Amino acid sequence: MKFEVTILGSSSATPVFNRNPSAQLLNCNEKYYLIDCGEGTQQQLTKYNLKAARIDHIFISHLHGDHYFGLIGLLSSLHLNGRIKPMHIFGPKPLLEILEIQFKYSDTVLRYPIEFTPIEADESRHIFSNQDLDVKTIVLNHRIPTTGFVFEQKPRQRKLVKEKTDEIPMAYYAALKKGIDVEQPDGTILKSGDYTTPADAPRSYAYCSDTMYDERYFETIKGCDTLYHEATFMHELLDRANETHHTTAKQAGEIARDNGITKLLIGHFSSRYKTLQMLLEEAQSVFENTELAVEGRTFQL
Amino acid sequence: MKFEVTILGSSSATPVFNRNPSAQLLNCNEKYYLIDCGEGTQQQLTKYNLKAARIDHIFISHLHGDHYFGLIGLLSSLHLNGRIKPMHIFGPKPLLEILEIQFKYSDTVLRYPIEFTPIEADESRHIFSNQDLDVKTIVLNHRIPTTGFVFEQKPRQRKLVKEKTDEIPMAYYAALKKGIDVEQPDGTILKSGDYTTPADAPRSYAYCSDTMYDERYFETIKGCDTLYHEATFMHELLDRANETHHTTAKQAGEIARDNGITKLLIGHFSSRYKTLQMLLEEAQSVFENTELAVEGRTFQL
Repeated sequence: MKFEVTILGSSSATPVFNRNPSAQLLNCNEKYYLIDCGEGTQQQLTKYNLKAARIDHIFISHLHGDHYFGLIGLLSSLHLNGRIKPMHIFGPKPLLEILEIQFKYSDTVLRYPIEFTPIEADESRHIFSNQDLDVKTIVLNHRIPTTGFVFEQKPRQRKLVKEKTDEIPMAYYAALKKGIDVEQPDGTILKSGDYTTPADAPRSYAYCSDTMYDERYFETIKGCDTLYHEATFMHELLDRANETHHTTAKQAGEIARDNGITKLLIGHFSSRYKTLQMLLEEAQSVFENTELAVEGRTFQL
Repeated sequence: MKFEVTILGSSSATPVFNRNPSAQLLNCNEKYYLIDCGEGTQQQLTKYNLKAARIDHIFISHLHGDHYFGLIGLLSSLHLNGRIKPMHIFGPKPLLEILEIQFKYSDTVLRYPIEFTPIEADESRHIFSNQDLDVKTIVLNHRIPTTGFVFEQKPRQRKLVKEKTDEIPMAYYAALKKGIDVEQPDGTILKSGDYTTPADAPRSYAYCSDTMYDERYFETIKGCDTLYHEATFMHELLDRANETHHTTAKQAGEIARDNGITKLLIGHFSSRYKTLQMLLEEAQSVFENTELAVEGRTFQL
């Protein structure tokens, strides 16, 4: 099952050096989930040939503009392009008010419904579930209420051993994949373990932006396979990071190292860094399996 | 005196084919005036090496998103980049409410003041004047209250004849340039006409987006040197243009032809047109001196 994320923006605060503000597109089993939506996200989707119409769920971490100013434009374009299926949006409660006031004054009545779930940033909550995914919030420590998100695949089914599928009726596949032994009409038993191999472990992706280093949210991200974590500054600017409630590249590495993460992606880079190699190296000095979450890159999760 | 406009967006409704939503940067005497501000305008300014910090006046024609969704991001970036000088914004009254609600929920207190002038779309009004320019509104006919803008240079001064400047004291230059004859201490008269040539005629630029063809606004744009007029559709889609309150390329040509315009720029192209040559040719079939107002082009006005 496909489980990958494409980076649409890696810049903090303001767009610079061809870096766009935060946005990521998660593809889970060919369904699209948009995570944050900075200005220009719809143009970025077009650039990377990702169809905005396929997005049915949008998660907004907080109401700093570099994480949501592109949302109203994306929603408007979907309306103009004829969308009728619902859009599910998860974000801070005032987000709906901000959207509605803009639709009101443009005299826009959307052709499609918005299903809005307000998010509180007081404790980690399970906010979404479908056949493929569970999503829970991460309570981050930023200047305004901010949550990250953990996207966790649902437990998977055992896999049929291809070479043996001819030996058994298709009607039994579903049960065997669930681990259930099947009794045939003649009384013989087909053991699930003989015809299937264990399921792939469900994978998980944690998205943490923006936040300062704060152990209180570590429990929520512990053991995730891939962690995206903001790394706005080099560690030499730790004071500035603390003051603005952001994280340094070194701290991002420490968070990955200390919480059983397999792979770390860093992003949300300050506009003071024209190139990013030194941020990468700083994080890698603590946690080697780190990559730069820059525009256009797709990571298998 | 410099008087030119750079096109930052030429698309209607949604960004497509590398065309961005409406925005133009007027440079008058090295002062920057932004006209409309669709999503991604700040990125477009960067792309064309135009410093956003130099913009002191912004004119928003109406509250359809493709004309203003980039404003909140631009204003936020200026704040983050340390702006302290005032920004003067002219636009429909609810625009301020839309901006303020977003600043409120991001807990942003701008370091610079916004000086907001609400625009009514009931009649053409003189809304701005400085040493270089007068600006008046054009009442357009669109689905929501919409105004265009006429930017008119102030009357210019007569020009000193360079070869003769050595013959006269500098103290007299100002009077002579104003057309005033000067009596010297010895009683001799320096005639302005002997030392200066007539001033360049003040030039004017009219910006009309979005609107359907409507003779009521022609009086306001009559005789302008350059007219930017939307030309969303080919004339074969006249019914669609009327229904959506837009203009066809042929109509834009007719408006220029019938109102003593010298040069016509057309823009705001529908996303159905991947290439624009046929729109240009249709307008030129009526009014030859027409050009495509596409991204990155600068026109001397």
